[in-house]
Amino acid sequence: MTQQITHLQLEEAVKRSPRKWVYLFSEGNAKMRDLLGGKGAGVAEMTNAGLPVPPGFTITTEACNGYYEAAKQFPAGVWEQVQMALQIIEQQTGKGFGKKENPLLVSVRSGAKFSMPGMMDTVLNLGINDETVQGLVELTGNERFAYDAYRRFIQMFSKIVLDTEPRDFEAVLDRYKEQVRVSSDAELSASDLKKIVDEFKQIAELQSGEPFPVDVFQQLHKAIEAVFSSWNNKRAIDYRNFNKIPHDLGTGVNVQMMVFGNMGDDSGTGVAFTRNPSTGEKVLYGEYLLNAQGEDVVAGIRTPSKISRLQADLPAVYQEFQEIANRLEQHYHDMQDLEFTVEKGKLYMLQTRSAKRNASAAVKVAVDMVGEGLISQEEALKRVDPVQVYQLLLPRFNDEEKWKARQTGRLLAKGLNASPGAAYGKAIFNADRAETLGKAGIPVVLVRPETSPDDVHGMLVAKGVLTARGGATSHAAVVARGLGLPCVAGCEDIRVSEEEHLFRVVGSNVVIKEGDDISIDGATGEVFAGIIKAVDADFDKELDLKTLLSWADQHRKLGVLANADNPRDAQRSVIFGAEGIGLCRTEHMFMEQERLPVVQKMILAQSKEERQAALDQLLAFQRDDFLNIFEAMINPKTGEGYPVVIRLIDMPLHEFLPSYEELLVETTRLEIQGGHDAELKEKQKLLETVRAMREVNPMLGLRGCRLSLLFPEINLMQTRAIFEAASLLTARGKKLHPKIMIPLIGHVNELKEVRRQLQSVADDIIPQNRIDYQFGTMIEVPRATVIADQLARETDFFSFGTNDLTQMTFGYSRDDAEGKFLLKYVEGLEIPGLKNKVKILPVNPFQTLDREGVGRLVAIAVEMGRRARPDIELGLCGEHGGDPDTITFCHEIGLHYVSCSPFRVPIARLAAAQAALSNTERDK
Amino acid sequence: MTQQITHLQLEEAVKRSPRKWVYLFSEGNAKMRDLLGGKGAGVAEMTNAGLPVPPGFTITTEACNGYYEAAKQFPAGVWEQVQMALQIIEQQTGKGFGKKENPLLVSVRSGAKFSMPGMMDTVLNLGINDETVQGLVELTGNERFAYDAYRRFIQMFSKIVLDTEPRDFEAVLDRYKEQVRVSSDAELSASDLKKIVDEFKQIAELQSGEPFPVDVFQQLHKAIEAVFSSWNNKRAIDYRNFNKIPHDLGTGVNVQMMVFGNMGDDSGTGVAFTRNPSTGEKVLYGEYLLNAQGEDVVAGIRTPSKISRLQADLPAVYQEFQEIANRLEQHYHDMQDLEFTVEKGKLYMLQTRSAKRNASAAVKVAVDMVGEGLISQEEALKRVDPVQVYQLLLPRFNDEEKWKARQTGRLLAKGLNASPGAAYGKAIFNADRAETLGKAGIPVVLVRPETSPDDVHGMLVAKGVLTARGGATSHAAVVARGLGLPCVAGCEDIRVSEEEHLFRVVGSNVVIKEGDDISIDGATGEVFAGIIKAVDADFDKELDLKTLLSWADQHRKLGVLANADNPRDAQRSVIFGAEGIGLCRTEHMFMEQERLPVVQKMILAQSKEERQAALDQLLAFQRDDFLNIFEAMINPKTGEGYPVVIRLIDMPLHEFLPSYEELLVETTRLEIQGGHDAELKEKQKLLETVRAMREVNPMLGLRGCRLSLLFPEINLMQTRAIFEAASLLTARGKKLHPKIMIPLIGHVNELKEVRRQLQSVADDIIPQNRIDYQFGTMIEVPRATVIADQLARETDFFSFGTNDLTQMTFGYSRDDAEGKFLLKYVEGLEIPGLKNKVKILPVNPFQTLDREGVGRLVAIAVEMGRRARPDIELGLCGEHGGDPDTITFCHEIGLHYVSCSPFRVPIARLAAAQAALSNTERDK
Repeated sequence: MTQQITHLQLEEAVKRSPRKWVYLFSEGNAKMRDLLGGKGAGVAEMTNAGLPVPPGFTITTEACNGYYEAAKQFPAGVWEQVQMALQIIEQQTGKGFGKKENPLLVSVRSGAKFSMPGMMDTVLNLGINDETVQGLVELTGNERFAYDAYRRFIQMFSKIVLDTEPRDFEAVLDRYKEQVRVSSDAELSASDLKKIVDEFKQIAELQSGEPFPVDVFQQLHKAIEAVFSSWNNKRAIDYRNFNKIPHDLGTGVNVQMMVFGNMGDDSGTGVAFTRNPSTGEKVLYGEYLLNAQGEDVVAGIRTPSKISRLQADLPAVYQEFQEIANRLEQHYHDMQDLEFTVEKGKLYMLQTRSAKRNASAAVKVAVDMVGEGLISQEEALKRVDPVQVYQLLLPRFNDEEKWKARQTGRLLAKGLNASPGAAYGKAIFNADRAETLGKAGIPVVLVRPETSPDDVHGMLVAKGVLTARGGATSHAAVVARGLGLPCVAGCEDIRVSEEEHLFRVVGSNVVIKEGDDISIDGATGEVFAGIIKAVDADFDKELDLKTLLSWADQHRKLGVLANADNPRDAQRSVIFGAEGIGLCRTEHMFMEQERLPVVQKMILAQSKEERQAALDQLLAFQRDDFLNIFEAMINPKTGEGYPVVIRLIDMPLHEFLPSYEELLVETTRLEIQGGHDAELKEKQKLLETVRAMREVNPMLGLRGCRLSLLFPEINLMQTRAIFEAASLLTARGKKLHPKIMIPLIGHVNELKEVRRQLQSVADDIIPQNRIDYQFGTMIEVPRATVIADQLARETDFFSFGTNDLTQMTFGYSRDDAEGKFLLKYVEGLEIPGLKNKVKILPVNPFQTLDREGVGRLVAIAVEMGRRARPDIELGLCGEHGGDPDTITFCHEIGLHYVSCSPFRVPIARLAAAQAALSNTERDK
Repeated sequence: MTQQITHLQLEEAVKRSPRKWVYLFSEGNAKMRDLLGGKGAGVAEMTNAGLPVPPGFTITTEACNGYYEAAKQFPAGVWEQVQMALQIIEQQTGKGFGKKENPLLVSVRSGAKFSMPGMMDTVLNLGINDETVQGLVELTGNERFAYDAYRRFIQMFSKIVLDTEPRDFEAVLDRYKEQVRVSSDAELSASDLKKIVDEFKQIAELQSGEPFPVDVFQQLHKAIEAVFSSWNNKRAIDYRNFNKIPHDLGTGVNVQMMVFGNMGDDSGTGVAFTRNPSTGEKVLYGEYLLNAQGEDVVAGIRTPSKISRLQADLPAVYQEFQEIANRLEQHYHDMQDLEFTVEKGKLYMLQTRSAKRNASAAVKVAVDMVGEGLISQEEALKRVDPVQVYQLLLPRFNDEEKWKARQTGRLLAKGLNASPGAAYGKAIFNADRAETLGKAGIPVVLVRPETSPDDVHGMLVAKGVLTARGGATSHAAVVARGLGLPCVAGCEDIRVSEEEHLFRVVGSNVVIKEGDDISIDGATGEVFAGIIKAVDADFDKELDLKTLLSWADQHRKLGVLANADNPRDAQRSVIFGAEGIGLCRTEHMFMEQERLPVVQKMILAQSKEERQAALDQLLAFQRDDFLNIFEAMINPKTGEGYPVVIRLIDMPLHEFLPSYEELLVETTRLEIQGGHDAELKEKQKLLETVRAMREVNPMLGLRGCRLSLLFPEINLMQTRAIFEAASLLTARGKKLHPKIMIPLIGHVNELKEVRRQLQSVADDIIPQNRIDYQFGTMIEVPRATVIADQLARETDFFSFGTNDLTQMTFGYSRDDAEGKFLLKYVEGLEIPGLKNKVKILPVNPFQTLDREGVGRLVAIAVEMGRRARPDIELGLCGEHGGDPDTITFCHEIGLHYVSCSPFRVPIARLAAAQAALSNTERDK
């Protein structure tokens, strides 16, 4: 191996192999993420940009996949190419791998296409043995440093590669520290470390059953294998499942010359962002430690300095680093997250990648970079995750306050960031008590082992929810997101005792008792003791966001409307940029306290007159409802109303009556106790009525247009209220666009008849052509999708009610499925005899529209409907309307608009723009 | 108009018109039913065959439609062509229309494409006025006859054309009869009738506001208009709705020379079938009256004679008639229903049409005609309505006995003919008592206001079921049809009092008390007091039917399998010609009395061991179940088993537990009463379990494969039982074809995982390749239809579960919909302000597969499934499998088989053959 190895020889070795498995950093570039992984592609790009990167090479993700295909054997040629690449590195560095003189030490790191921080394995300082350690001593003149590197290597290699018990090594270190009466590893002397190295080697041999490898090539071979294997460790699989990363990508392996930040005060190591990842401010942000290795920064024994202090410590290095940071931003047109090491005054760049940033920073950086000419508006729009935008609209903790809380040890635990937003309040361990206190105006955070539908009344008044169990799609998470309620779920660091009304923090003595103040950050999953002040979001002050959304509006093709059932939500939706109301549900109006008795009177009426009296009362209520909503939706500048789609009553009537079970218990009690004959008789009568109206499957029962066909008077009353309200405003000079939507249509004859009835009301009330109204139908029954041509001929618009459509297409009752099996379907089922959980569904179809099933039906309906009536207006108004993936789908199939909850309107605006942009790209 | 008119002139008149509106009988033929209507085409065909038909002509159905399009005006040319045709008739008969000498009288009759007996209007004796009546007197020498014809004409014309009140005319007749002290119209003298004619004319003038028309052309014009209008009278519309006849066909109008059967004892009128319509025997069957008009036969004042007596009365006429009847059968290749009149010894044929016949006759005539060489086997197969065949397999009342019961006033009421068959027994008003008596061998008819699942145990032992409420798809009707149990449903003529154990007959004093004998005819809906003897059907003795079905088997392409859950049904299905079991449901087995407690133990088990013990017990039961079914399905000749498709458990587990409501009442009672702490605690625990398992929409909940994925042990036990049973029989030298079917698949991952589990059981039990088994899936969730390609790659067969697929595609819960709105949807809704009911659905989609919605999805699945896996086996196993329309659809989309209840297997065999034949015809 004394011979000079050239790239040409490496290429020849490649020709002998099935493919090229190994790329020198100088051979790669940023576009090769698939093949080299993110880290490999990043260092390659930096290398080629002439930045100071320690030389090295990357083993491809294909090699990793080949390793699994070959039943955990290196595919042919991998090892040969690795050895050759290593020789080229030796030539470049003048160092020798396994050589006593000027020994080459390398790091072996994982690096997949998508960053999976901390999930896979890394081995540092590889290449040390009893011989090379001497070379290291000679080279550095620092025996302590050399033996410390040696013991670190054995410790790390044993844990990662040999799978030994880490505690045994710790015990040895502890013993030596006790013997020499020091408290930190750093205080151990070179001679201590020598002895420790010997003991470590014995432990490794004892536990692995073979001598600790002295052959550096054997070390390297095993370390590469270990990294390949770590792709499929449980942690990594769970992470990929959670982040929807495919399991067949494989990881790259980066073998790189070690550089040492712990070689004195002219050395150091650090991490930095090119801009502030919390605020987006354009200033270097990060921290470093002089005379330290990366591990030390993580260990947290010494407090790192802010990056700005490097200017004083090592001015030349700082300036070089600053220049490099700027060059990398220019190069990548994005904010970067950098790792660097300084070895004896020389700066080495170890990693660059697109920086993670919070919502504020994402928006500001994107908008700023457009101003700086770094990126286009289109690019800026693509840079911001629409879901992040949502966070900007929720209360957040003051950063300073949160930092202080962390510094003072008040960070108790970290769970899943299940529903964003900040909340503080008294920890309450029971939904009933939470309800009582919440209604009394006391802020509470509901804390439960996990939640069930029985807890919802507590959630409704809580400021936030914390659960110890359950994932991102657990009941708590799903309900909280629906309510816009901050939620930290599956917080395994706490143990909740319902009986004792408290939770304990695992691994500490901290106990939070009922009534104690806590704060939770749903965006990060953090749980704090005590109160951290939260700042309410003010959309109007989010100037960068407003700029970004104004660009989005220019690019998107999809309209964005809001689901709003009352004037408050209507106003809010306009502030958030909605172009109208896409779904105004009328049943919530019926449920309001003062009205419910009237509704019940109507349902239970014994005579036509009694019923009519109740209907007349409701007419007055409803006319006001619609008047107020229409008014809220009038553009003050033009006096013209945004379109408002009002859905006629959809709920089964029995939902307005008392519960059957309660009545049953009541009558049973009265029967047994005796002596309440009049009351009993009345209750029995009511019980009979409710019994007769009960349904086995109310979801599939008498509701929507079915109800209207059997009892037309409710629909007629609502239609009258709508047109009377519209007429009043029209008389005041406003121009309105009410749209009446008929729910649950399954057969064209239903639509024809209901529409005929509504038309007759319209003809009755509206003077010729004075109001621009439309009739439309929801498409929510699977049958409606395949007869959409017939329906289109009878109607002005379709609105896809994808909640119900999903329920019926899957045959999932949402009330039952989510608790009973759906979450398990998404998270994976534990099957006896199988190691991995079996995932049935990729995502919860109630959150993201199921393209291949429900989406297929929607697409069929769009195509049929449009063929029958080219000008039909098409929208979607399920909860999916605020989901970016679904919005992309809606754009692709050519809907005119989506409608979502007011808070989600900004998300939808951005997501719609992104969909339009990615479409444009595809068209190119 | 004295000029001779020729056909040529008529043709020229046609050329001047937009089209030919009028066809002389000699211009038409039997194939012109669309244009001339059934009656017109029939008399035209007879005319051209040289049979003695009074001359006439037909105004086309197109003219009728044109009349409506022109807002109730005759289209241009109609009247001109009518007048010319009339002149040709005058020339043919030597009579003159409106002429005093030898006046021509005509009948004006409706006649649509499809027979609508009695629904539309007819005017006889048209052409009479004060002048022509004299001619009639002179011609016949019979003044009484002439004036009787005149008054009949005025009476009929006034009612039909002038829309006057018929009772006023009757009152006049009654007054005269009283004056001259006679009791029948026939006894009134010529002078009475003259006066009556005068009074009638006055009444007509008074009521219509204008003089009674003396112009015979005016009479004719108005009569034709009246017939056109009668196409859209309410009666006719309802009839067409009920019989699924389109509303845009229009009616023809037949204008024909009157002949008179009431001109003495050498005259007469009658109706006859060419064969016996009850038995199919080849002998003239019918009746006639001498010296009478058709009306007199209908009026029933005189008793008609059997047709065979005509041989003695008018031998020459009888012989001619016999010959004509034979000729018509030969001509039409079908049994005919004939109307004739004899005028002074001359026989006139007035109508011939295909004869209605009952099930026995239909089968015998079809098979006989093949023997006679009149029709082919293919034609015979098309002649029999598959639904009629069903009736041949059920007990029937002896016709004579039933007639007697009617005569003696024992017919109590008439309800819906919900499930055919005859039954008699003691009326019992409660399912428990019915069960007790039924098990004691006493025949009972269960009588309920309506039935629910709580009544099924009573239905199982009853001979028949009678309900006061509910339609053709009510619980009672559906369950009864499933059980092959006679059922009269929705009998609104009775009021059932559960408390008093009796029913009252509305509008009478009759009360039927518990224990009284009653008889019900499920084929007609009749309810009788007392016992009427029923004759059991014996399939083996239905030789003609068996012959017909053997022909069917040669022609059909669809396989016919049976739904059978136990050995008895399995055996029966083989007798009826099933080629295997297409659906063996396993939940019924779980419900059996001795097993339910074990099933409950399994569900409620507190430990793994407890659960396994229950499962082991169930395994033994199930192994026996499958062993017995497999044995019943082994062909004794070959030792080979027919295919048996076994569906794994589908029901939600909570259906095996006690009712939540009962437990609620129970615990409430125990709580209030106190002192039963142990029992209360146990009940409360059970209540909690049941509460936790309850579902809002069980139809869309935790069942089918969802249950199996969460609790695999039940499926694994069942699969083990199936393969162990199959192995036992294989060891005995039998060759089996078990097929295991996985229910409720909605996502391909469900199928993959369940199949993997089942496969592991199979691999465990079955020695290599010794049993030819398959795994398949039900397609019953809408989503499954649009991902059928994915499913096809994982499975050997699809079976369309169209019951659930219909529920989910429409969003109809069958339990709720049928009672609450579905029947109204089918029958038509009464909408305030609308004259006609509004029909939403053409048929009940649970009886006949909804082609345009559910069928569309099925077709999509077939196409996708086949593309992904060309050899996939495709069947249908919903209740629709026994419905002829659905079977046609299944044939058309190329399924391999249908599976239906054993009793319906013969229907399916015939319907499948018909589908294949009609396909062959289309291909020609």
